[in-house]
Amino acid sequence: MIKKAIVLLSGGLDSTTTLAMAKKKKFEIYAISFDYGQRHKFEIKKAQIIAKKIGVKQHKIIKIDLRQIGGSALTDDINVPERKNGKNSKGIPVTYVPARNTIFLSFALAWAEVLDIQNIFIGVNAIDFSGYPDCRSIFIKAFEKMANLATKMTTEGKKIKIHAPLINLKKSDIIKIGCKLGIDYGITHSCYNPDNSGKSCGKCDSCILRAKGFKEAGIHDPLFER
Amino acid sequence: MIKKAIVLLSGGLDSTTTLAMAKKKKFEIYAISFDYGQRHKFEIKKAQIIAKKIGVKQHKIIKIDLRQIGGSALTDDINVPERKNGKNSKGIPVTYVPARNTIFLSFALAWAEVLDIQNIFIGVNAIDFSGYPDCRSIFIKAFEKMANLATKMTTEGKKIKIHAPLINLKKSDIIKIGCKLGIDYGITHSCYNPDNSGKSCGKCDSCILRAKGFKEAGIHDPLFER
Repeated sequence: MIKKAIVLLSGGLDSTTTLAMAKKKKFEIYAISFDYGQRHKFEIKKAQIIAKKIGVKQHKIIKIDLRQIGGSALTDDINVPERKNGKNSKGIPVTYVPARNTIFLSFALAWAEVLDIQNIFIGVNAIDFSGYPDCRSIFIKAFEKMANLATKMTTEGKKIKIHAPLINLKKSDIIKIGCKLGIDYGITHSCYNPDNSGKSCGKCDSCILRAKGFKEAGIHDPLFER
Repeated sequence: MIKKAIVLLSGGLDSTTTLAMAKKKKFEIYAISFDYGQRHKFEIKKAQIIAKKIGVKQHKIIKIDLRQIGGSALTDDINVPERKNGKNSKGIPVTYVPARNTIFLSFALAWAEVLDIQNIFIGVNAIDFSGYPDCRSIFIKAFEKMANLATKMTTEGKKIKIHAPLINLKKSDIIKIGCKLGIDYGITHSCYNPDNSGKSCGKCDSCILRAKGFKEAGIHDPLFER
Protein backbone atom coordinates (compact mmCIF):
# COMPACT_ATOMS: atom_id res chain seq x y z
CA MET A 1 0.00 0.00 0.00
CA ILE A 2 1.26 3.47 -0.85
CA LYS A 3 1.98 5.64 2.19
CA LYS A 4 0.82 9.19 1.55
CA ALA A 5 1.63 12.45 3.26
CA ILE A 6 0.75 16.12 3.05
CA VAL A 7 3.85 18.32 3.38
CA LEU A 8 3.60 22.05 4.12
CA LEU A 9 6.08 23.64 1.76
CA SER A 10 6.97 27.31 2.07
CA GLY A 11 9.99 27.21 -0.20
CA GLY A 12 12.31 27.75 2.74
CA LEU A 13 15.18 25.70 4.04
CA ASP A 14 13.25 23.95 6.80
CA SER A 15 10.19 22.90 4.80
CA THR A 16 12.39 21.74 1.91
CA THR A 17 14.39 19.53 4.27
CA THR A 18 11.15 18.21 5.75
CA LEU A 19 9.91 17.37 2.26
CA ALA A 20 13.12 15.48 1.48
CA MET A 21 12.87 13.60 4.80
CA ALA A 22 9.28 12.55 4.09
CA LYS A 23 10.31 11.47 0.60
CA LYS A 24 13.20 9.44 2.06
CA LYS A 25 10.64 7.68 4.28
CA LYS A 26 8.87 6.56 1.08
CA PHE A 27 5.79 8.71 1.43
CA GLU A 28 3.99 9.76 -1.72
CA ILE A 29 3.94 13.53 -1.31
CA TYR A 30 1.10 16.02 -1.60
CA ALA A 31 2.73 19.40 -1.07
CA ILE A 32 0.73 22.43 0.01
CA SER A 33 1.88 26.05 -0.15
CA PHE A 34 0.12 29.27 0.74
CA ASP A 35 -0.17 32.46 -1.22
CA TYR A 36 -1.29 34.45 1.81
CA GLY A 37 -0.33 37.99 0.92
CA GLN A 38 3.23 37.64 2.23
CA ARG A 39 5.70 40.31 1.14
CA HIS A 40 8.13 37.51 0.24
CA LYS A 41 5.72 35.98 -2.24
CA PHE A 42 8.82 35.05 -4.21
CA GLU A 43 9.00 31.96 -1.97
CA ILE A 44 6.02 30.44 -3.81
CA LYS A 45 7.95 30.30 -7.07
CA LYS A 46 10.75 28.61 -5.19
CA ALA A 47 8.30 26.13 -3.66
CA GLN A 48 7.14 25.21 -7.16
CA ILE A 49 10.71 24.60 -8.32
CA ILE A 50 11.48 22.56 -5.19
CA ALA A 51 8.32 20.44 -5.50
CA LYS A 52 9.23 19.66 -9.08
CA LYS A 53 12.87 18.92 -8.34
CA ILE A 54 12.31 16.70 -5.28
CA GLY A 55 9.26 15.11 -6.86
CA VAL A 56 5.71 15.26 -5.51
CA LYS A 57 2.47 13.66 -6.62
CA GLN A 58 0.59 16.95 -6.41
CA HIS A 59 1.39 20.51 -5.37
CA LYS A 60 -1.49 22.68 -4.27
CA ILE A 61 -1.09 26.41 -3.80
CA ILE A 62 -3.85 27.76 -1.61
CA LYS A 63 -4.83 31.40 -1.96
CA ILE A 64 -5.88 32.92 1.36
CA ASP A 65 -5.27 36.57 1.89
CA LEU A 66 -4.15 37.06 5.48
CA ARG A 67 -3.97 40.81 4.85
CA GLN A 68 -7.70 40.60 5.56
CA ILE A 69 -6.64 39.88 9.15
CA GLY A 70 -3.39 41.85 9.34
CA GLY A 71 -1.21 42.25 12.41
CA SER A 72 2.18 41.29 10.97
CA ALA A 73 5.19 42.83 9.28
CA LEU A 74 5.02 39.99 6.76
CA THR A 75 1.59 40.95 5.48
CA ASP A 76 1.18 44.61 6.43
CA ASP A 77 2.94 47.84 5.74
CA ILE A 78 5.23 47.44 8.75
CA ASN A 79 9.02 47.34 8.30
CA VAL A 80 10.73 43.99 8.71
CA PRO A 81 13.27 44.55 11.50
CA GLU A 82 16.95 43.77 11.15
CA ARG A 83 18.33 41.27 13.63
CA LYS A 84 20.95 43.08 15.70
CA ASN A 85 24.29 41.41 16.57
CA GLY A 86 22.88 38.04 15.65
CA LYS A 87 20.45 38.31 18.53
CA ASN A 88 16.73 38.49 18.54
CA SER A 89 15.10 41.62 19.92
CA LYS A 90 13.10 41.18 23.12
CA GLY A 91 10.06 38.95 22.78
CA ILE A 92 8.35 37.65 19.68
CA PRO A 93 9.17 39.86 16.66
CA VAL A 94 6.67 41.76 14.49
CA THR A 95 7.22 39.22 11.70
CA TYR A 96 5.01 36.86 13.69
CA VAL A 97 1.77 36.28 11.74
CA PRO A 98 -1.21 35.76 14.07
CA ALA A 99 -2.28 32.11 14.14
CA ARG A 100 -0.49 31.40 10.85
CA ASN A 101 0.47 27.81 11.53
CA THR A 102 -2.97 27.11 12.99
CA ILE A 103 -4.53 28.37 9.75
CA PHE A 104 -2.04 26.54 7.50
CA LEU A 105 -2.41 23.26 9.40
CA SER A 106 -6.21 23.61 9.27
CA PHE A 107 -6.12 23.76 5.48
CA ALA A 108 -3.65 20.86 5.39
CA LEU A 109 -6.04 18.92 7.62
CA ALA A 110 -8.99 19.63 5.32
CA TRP A 111 -7.02 18.50 2.28
CA ALA A 112 -5.78 15.42 4.15
CA GLU A 113 -9.38 14.49 4.81
CA VAL A 114 -10.41 14.96 1.18
CA LEU A 115 -7.49 12.78 0.02
CA ASP A 116 -7.89 10.29 2.90
CA ILE A 117 -4.33 10.96 4.10
CA GLN A 118 -3.36 10.53 7.73
CA ASN A 119 0.14 12.03 7.77
CA ILE A 120 0.94 15.74 7.73
CA PHE A 121 4.54 17.01 7.79
CA ILE A 122 5.47 20.51 8.93
CA GLY A 123 8.99 21.91 9.14
CA VAL A 124 8.66 23.85 12.38
CA ASN A 125 11.74 24.20 14.52
CA ALA A 126 12.03 25.45 18.09
CA ILE A 127 15.81 25.76 18.44
CA ASP A 128 17.18 28.25 15.90
CA PHE A 129 13.89 30.09 15.44
CA SER A 130 12.24 33.47 15.90
CA GLY A 131 10.32 32.50 19.02
CA TYR A 132 6.98 32.06 17.28
CA PRO A 133 4.61 30.21 19.66
CA ASP A 134 3.15 28.08 16.85
CA CYS A 135 6.55 26.52 16.15
CA ARG A 136 6.74 24.77 19.52
CA SER A 137 6.26 21.06 20.13
CA ILE A 138 3.53 21.73 22.70
CA PHE A 139 1.49 23.54 20.04
CA ILE A 140 1.97 20.79 17.44
CA LYS A 141 0.81 18.15 19.92
CA ALA A 142 -2.27 20.18 20.84
CA PHE A 143 -3.11 20.69 17.17
CA GLU A 144 -2.79 16.96 16.53
CA LYS A 145 -5.12 16.19 19.42
CA MET A 146 -7.67 18.71 18.15
CA ALA A 147 -7.35 17.39 14.57
CA ASN A 148 -8.24 13.92 15.82
CA LEU A 149 -11.57 15.28 17.08
CA ALA A 150 -12.29 17.65 14.20
CA THR A 151 -12.83 15.44 11.21
CA LYS A 152 -15.17 12.82 9.82
CA MET A 153 -12.25 10.48 9.07
CA THR A 154 -11.20 10.42 12.71
CA THR A 155 -14.73 9.47 13.80
CA GLU A 156 -14.23 6.44 11.54
CA GLY A 157 -11.20 5.30 13.54
CA LYS A 158 -8.48 6.87 11.41
CA LYS A 159 -5.69 8.76 13.14
CA ILE A 160 -4.09 12.01 12.00
CA LYS A 161 -0.39 12.29 12.75
CA ILE A 162 1.39 15.64 12.58
CA HIS A 163 5.09 15.02 11.93
CA ALA A 164 7.53 17.77 12.90
CA PRO A 165 10.88 16.06 12.30
CA LEU A 166 12.96 19.25 12.71
CA ILE A 167 11.42 20.42 15.96
CA ASN A 168 14.45 19.80 18.17
CA LEU A 169 17.24 20.15 15.63
CA LYS A 170 19.75 22.96 15.37
CA LYS A 171 19.71 24.80 12.04
CA SER A 172 23.20 23.47 11.28
CA ASP A 173 22.01 19.88 11.81
CA ILE A 174 19.02 20.49 9.54
CA ILE A 175 21.40 21.70 6.83
CA LYS A 176 23.71 18.70 7.30
CA ILE A 177 20.77 16.28 7.03
CA GLY A 178 19.50 18.06 3.93
CA CYS A 179 22.89 17.98 2.25
CA LYS A 180 23.11 14.23 2.90
CA LEU A 181 19.70 13.88 1.26
CA GLY A 182 21.07 15.72 -1.77
CA ILE A 183 19.14 18.98 -1.40
CA ASP A 184 20.46 21.90 -3.41
CA TYR A 185 19.77 24.70 -0.94
CA GLY A 186 20.49 27.16 -3.73
CA ILE A 187 16.88 26.72 -4.86
CA THR A 188 15.40 27.51 -1.43
CA HIS A 189 14.44 30.93 -0.12
CA SER A 190 14.49 32.19 3.47
CA CYS A 191 14.46 36.00 3.38
CA TYR A 192 11.41 37.87 4.72
CA ASN A 193 12.25 40.99 2.82
CA PRO A 194 13.75 40.23 -0.60
CA ASP A 195 14.15 42.84 -3.32
CA ASN A 196 12.09 42.67 -6.50
CA SER A 197 14.47 40.18 -8.11
CA GLY A 198 14.14 37.89 -5.06
CA LYS A 199 17.59 38.72 -3.68
CA SER A 200 17.85 38.17 0.08
CA CYS A 201 18.35 41.17 2.37
CA GLY A 202 20.88 39.42 4.60
CA LYS A 203 19.64 41.36 7.62
CA CYS A 204 16.26 39.95 8.67
CA ASP A 205 15.80 37.30 11.32
CA SER A 206 15.37 34.60 8.74
CA CYS A 207 18.51 35.52 6.78
CA ILE A 208 20.61 35.72 9.94
CA LEU A 209 19.40 32.35 11.25
CA ARG A 210 20.13 30.78 7.88
CA ALA A 211 23.64 32.26 7.72
CA LYS A 212 24.37 31.11 11.27
CA GLY A 213 23.22 27.59 10.39
CA PHE A 214 25.46 27.31 7.34
CA LYS A 215 28.41 28.75 9.27
CA GLU A 216 27.98 26.29 12.14
CA ALA A 217 27.58 23.42 9.69
CA GLY A 218 30.80 24.47 7.96
CA ILE A 219 29.01 24.51 4.61
CA HIS A 220 28.89 27.34 2.10
CA ASP A 221 25.35 28.49 1.35
CA PRO A 222 24.84 27.83 -2.38
CA LEU A 223 22.19 30.59 -2.47
CA PHE A 224 25.00 33.11 -2.61
CA GLU A 225 26.90 31.42 -5.41
CA ARG A 226 24.29 32.44 -7.94
CA MET B 1 -13.54 48.22 30.73
CA ILE B 2 -15.32 47.16 27.59
CA LYS B 3 -15.66 43.40 27.22
CA LYS B 4 -15.10 42.41 23.60
CA ALA B 5 -15.94 39.23 21.71
CA ILE B 6 -15.55 37.77 18.25
CA VAL B 7 -18.76 36.04 17.10
CA LEU B 8 -18.81 33.64 14.16
CA LEU B 9 -21.89 34.64 12.21
CA SER B 10 -23.14 32.50 9.34
CA GLY B 11 -26.52 34.16 9.00
CA GLY B 12 -28.25 31.06 10.31
CA LEU B 13 -30.54 30.57 13.27
CA ASP B 14 -27.89 29.25 15.65
CA SER B 15 -25.19 31.85 15.05
CA THR B 16 -27.77 34.65 15.19
CA THR B 17 -28.97 33.41 18.57
CA THR B 18 -25.37 33.16 19.75
CA LEU B 19 -24.77 36.75 18.65
CA ALA B 20 -27.83 37.94 20.57
CA MET B 21 -26.69 35.99 23.65
CA ALA B 22 -23.20 37.54 23.54
CA LYS B 23 -24.80 40.97 23.12
CA LYS B 24 -27.06 40.33 26.11
CA LYS B 25 -23.92 39.56 28.13
CA LYS B 26 -22.72 43.09 27.30
CA PHE B 27 -19.91 42.13 24.96
CA GLU B 28 -18.90 44.58 22.26
CA ILE B 29 -19.23 42.42 19.16
CA TYR B 30 -16.80 41.82 16.31
CA ALA B 31 -18.70 39.53 13.93
CA ILE B 32 -16.88 37.38 11.39
CA SER B 33 -18.48 35.65 8.39
CA PHE B 34 -16.96 33.53 5.66
CA ASP B 35 -17.46 33.76 1.93
CA TYR B 36 -16.01 30.30 1.35
CA GLY B 37 -17.53 29.23 -1.93
CA GLN B 38 -20.68 27.87 -0.32
CA ARG B 39 -23.63 27.23 -2.64
CA HIS B 40 -25.84 29.05 -0.14
CA LYS B 41 -23.81 32.24 -0.41
CA PHE B 42 -27.12 33.99 0.13
CA GLU B 43 -26.47 33.52 3.86
CA ILE B 44 -23.75 36.21 3.77
CA LYS B 45 -26.28 38.87 2.78
CA LYS B 46 -28.42 37.71 5.67
CA ALA B 47 -25.43 37.87 8.03
CA GLN B 48 -24.90 41.50 7.01
CA ILE B 49 -28.52 42.35 7.72
CA ILE B 50 -28.40 40.53 11.07
CA ALA B 51 -25.14 42.20 12.14
CA LYS B 52 -26.65 45.59 11.38
CA LYS B 53 -29.97 44.85 13.09
CA ILE B 54 -28.55 43.33 16.29
CA GLY B 55 -25.69 45.83 16.33
CA VAL B 56 -22.01 45.03 16.12
CA LYS B 57 -18.87 47.15 16.36
CA GLN B 58 -17.40 45.61 13.21
CA HIS B 59 -18.38 42.90 10.76
CA LYS B 60 -15.61 41.25 8.79
CA ILE B 61 -16.36 38.99 5.84
CA ILE B 62 -13.38 36.78 5.11
CA LYS B 63 -12.96 35.45 1.59
CA ILE B 64 -11.44 31.97 1.56
CA ASP B 65 -12.36 29.69 -1.26
CA LEU B 66 -12.79 26.19 0.17
CA ARG B 67 -13.54 24.93 -3.34
CA GLN B 68 -9.74 24.85 -3.59
CA ILE B 69 -9.97 21.94 -1.12
CA GLY B 70 -13.34 20.44 -2.08
CA GLY B 71 -14.89 17.32 -0.60
CA SER B 72 -18.36 18.62 0.25
CA ALA B 73 -21.81 18.98 -1.26
CA LEU B 74 -21.81 22.57 0.04
CA THR B 75 -18.84 23.63 -2.06
CA ASP B 76 -18.68 21.10 -4.88
CA ASP B 77 -20.94 19.95 -7.65
CA ILE B 78 -22.50 17.24 -5.50
CA ASN B 79 -26.25 17.23 -4.85
CA VAL B 80 -27.45 18.27 -1.41
CA PRO B 81 -29.42 15.27 -0.13
CA GLU B 82 -32.97 15.50 1.14
CA ARG B 83 -33.50 14.38 4.71
CA LYS B 84 -35.88 11.40 4.63
CA ASN B 85 -38.75 11.08 7.11
CA GLY B 86 -37.17 13.67 9.35
CA LYS B 87 -34.27 11.32 9.96
CA ASN B 88 -30.65 11.67 9.06
CA SER B 89 -29.17 9.18 6.64
CA LYS B 90 -26.55 6.81 8.04
CA GLY B 91 -23.39 8.55 9.22
CA ILE B 92 -22.18 12.06 8.59
CA PRO B 93 -23.85 13.54 5.47
CA VAL B 94 -22.07 14.81 2.33
CA THR B 95 -22.87 18.37 3.37
CA TYR B 96 -20.04 18.03 5.89
CA VAL B 97 -17.22 20.41 4.86
CA PRO B 98 -13.79 18.99 5.78
CA ALA B 99 -12.31 20.82 8.78
CA ARG B 100 -14.61 23.80 8.25
CA ASN B 101 -14.98 24.84 11.88
CA THR B 102 -11.25 24.31 12.45
CA ILE B 103 -10.54 26.70 9.59
CA PHE B 104 -13.18 29.23 10.64
CA LEU B 105 -12.06 29.21 14.28
CA SER B 106 -8.43 29.61 13.16
CA PHE B 107 -9.29 32.81 11.32
CA ALA B 108 -11.36 33.99 14.30
CA LEU B 109 -8.36 33.28 16.52
CA ALA B 110 -6.04 35.28 14.27
CA TRP B 111 -8.44 38.23 14.27
CA ALA B 112 -8.89 37.93 18.04
CA GLU B 113 -5.15 38.25 18.43
CA VAL B 114 -4.93 41.30 16.17
CA LEU B 115 -7.74 43.00 18.12
CA ASP B 116 -6.49 41.73 21.52
CA ILE B 117 -9.78 39.95 22.19
CA GLN B 118 -9.95 36.88 24.41
CA ASN B 119 -13.52 35.70 23.81
CA ILE B 120 -14.76 33.86 20.74
CA PHE B 121 -18.39 32.76 20.37
CA ILE B 122 -19.48 29.99 18.03
CA GLY B 123 -23.04 28.68 17.62
CA VAL B 124 -22.30 24.98 17.35
CA ASN B 125 -24.91 22.58 18.63
CA ALA B 126 -24.61 18.86 19.23
CA ILE B 127 -28.24 17.94 19.86
CA ASP B 128 -30.39 18.79 16.81
CA PHE B 129 -27.51 18.70 14.35
CA SER B 130 -26.22 16.89 11.29
CA GLY B 131 -23.61 14.87 13.17
CA TYR B 132 -20.65 17.00 12.10
CA PRO B 133 -17.66 16.10 14.30
CA ASP B 134 -16.55 19.73 14.59
CA CYS B 135 -19.81 20.69 16.29
CA ARG B 136 -19.11 18.58 19.37
CA SER B 137 -18.08 19.89 22.78
CA ILE B 138 -14.99 17.67 22.83
CA PHE B 139 -13.75 19.35 19.64
CA ILE B 140 -14.40 22.88 20.94
CA LYS B 141 -12.47 22.12 24.14
CA ALA B 142 -9.53 20.71 22.17
CA PHE B 143 -9.53 23.76 19.90
CA GLU B 144 -9.52 26.07 22.91
CA LYS B 145 -6.57 24.21 24.41
CA MET B 146 -4.65 24.41 21.15
CA ALA B 147 -5.52 28.12 20.74
CA ASN B 148 -3.99 28.81 24.13
CA LEU B 149 -0.67 27.47 22.86
CA ALA B 150 -0.83 28.92 19.34
CA THR B 151 -0.62 32.65 19.80
CA LYS B 152 1.68 35.38 20.99
CA MET B 153 -1.02 36.81 23.25
CA THR B 154 -1.32 33.55 25.17
CA THR B 155 2.45 33.49 25.78
CA GLU B 156 1.88 36.84 27.50
CA GLY B 157 -0.53 35.29 30.00
CA LYS B 158 -3.80 36.06 28.21
CA LYS B 159 -6.40 33.31 27.93
CA ILE B 160 -8.56 32.53 24.91
CA LYS B 161 -12.04 31.31 25.75
CA ILE B 162 -14.20 29.63 23.11
CA HIS B 163 -17.85 30.05 24.09
CA ALA B 164 -20.36 27.60 22.64
CA PRO B 165 -23.53 28.52 24.52
CA LEU B 166 -25.86 26.39 22.35
CA ILE B 167 -23.84 23.20 22.50
CA ASN B 168 -26.26 21.20 24.64
CA LEU B 169 -29.53 22.91 23.74
CA LYS B 170 -32.37 21.47 21.69
CA LYS B 171 -33.21 23.49 18.57
CA SER B 172 -36.60 24.37 20.08
CA ASP B 173 -34.91 25.77 23.20
CA ILE B 174 -32.52 27.83 21.06
CA ILE B 175 -35.53 29.31 19.25
CA LYS B 176 -37.33 30.06 22.52
CA ILE B 177 -34.24 31.82 23.92
CA GLY B 178 -33.84 33.79 20.72
CA CYS B 179 -37.46 34.89 20.72
CA LYS B 180 -37.11 36.09 24.31
CA LEU B 181 -34.07 38.10 23.18
CA GLY B 182 -36.21 39.69 20.50
CA ILE B 183 -34.67 38.02 17.45
CA ASP B 184 -36.70 38.21 14.27
CA TYR B 185 -35.88 34.80 12.80
CA GLY B 186 -37.42 35.96 9.55
CA ILE B 187 -34.09 37.59 8.71
CA THR B 188 -32.06 34.42 9.26
CA HIS B 189 -31.26 31.75 6.70
CA SER B 190 -30.75 28.02 7.22
CA CYS B 191 -31.19 26.26 3.86
CA TYR B 192 -28.18 24.58 2.24
CA ASN B 193 -29.76 24.64 -1.17
CA PRO B 194 -31.80 27.79 -1.76
CA ASP B 195 -33.04 28.85 -5.18
CA ASN B 196 -31.66 31.95 -6.88
CA SER B 197 -34.00 34.24 -4.96
CA GLY B 198 -32.81 32.74 -1.66
CA LYS B 199 -35.98 30.72 -1.08
CA SER B 200 -35.41 27.69 1.18
CA CYS B 201 -35.80 24.21 -0.30
CA GLY B 202 -37.59 22.80 2.75
CA LYS B 203 -36.03 19.40 2.16
CA CYS B 204 -32.37 19.55 3.20
CA ASP B 205 -31.05 18.60 6.61
CA SER B 206 -30.83 22.17 7.70
CA CYS B 207 -34.39 23.08 6.63
CA ILE B 208 -35.81 19.97 8.32
CA LEU B 209 -33.96 20.59 11.61
CA ARG B 210 -35.17 24.19 11.58
CA ALA B 211 -38.80 23.20 10.92
CA LYS B 212 -38.67 20.56 13.67
CA GLY B 213 -37.29 23.15 16.10
CA PHE B 214 -40.06 25.67 15.43
CA LYS B 215 -42.68 22.94 15.61
CA GLU B 216 -41.42 21.67 18.98
CA ALA B 217 -41.18 25.24 20.29
CA GLY B 218 -44.78 25.84 19.23
CA ILE B 219 -43.71 28.94 17.33
CA HIS B 220 -44.45 29.78 13.71
CA ASP B 221 -41.28 30.32 11.65
CA PRO B 222 -41.47 33.92 10.43
CA LEU B 223 -39.24 33.01 7.47
CA PHE B 224 -42.31 31.58 5.78
CA GLU B 225 -44.50 34.58 6.37
CA ARG B 226 -42.58 36.59 3.81
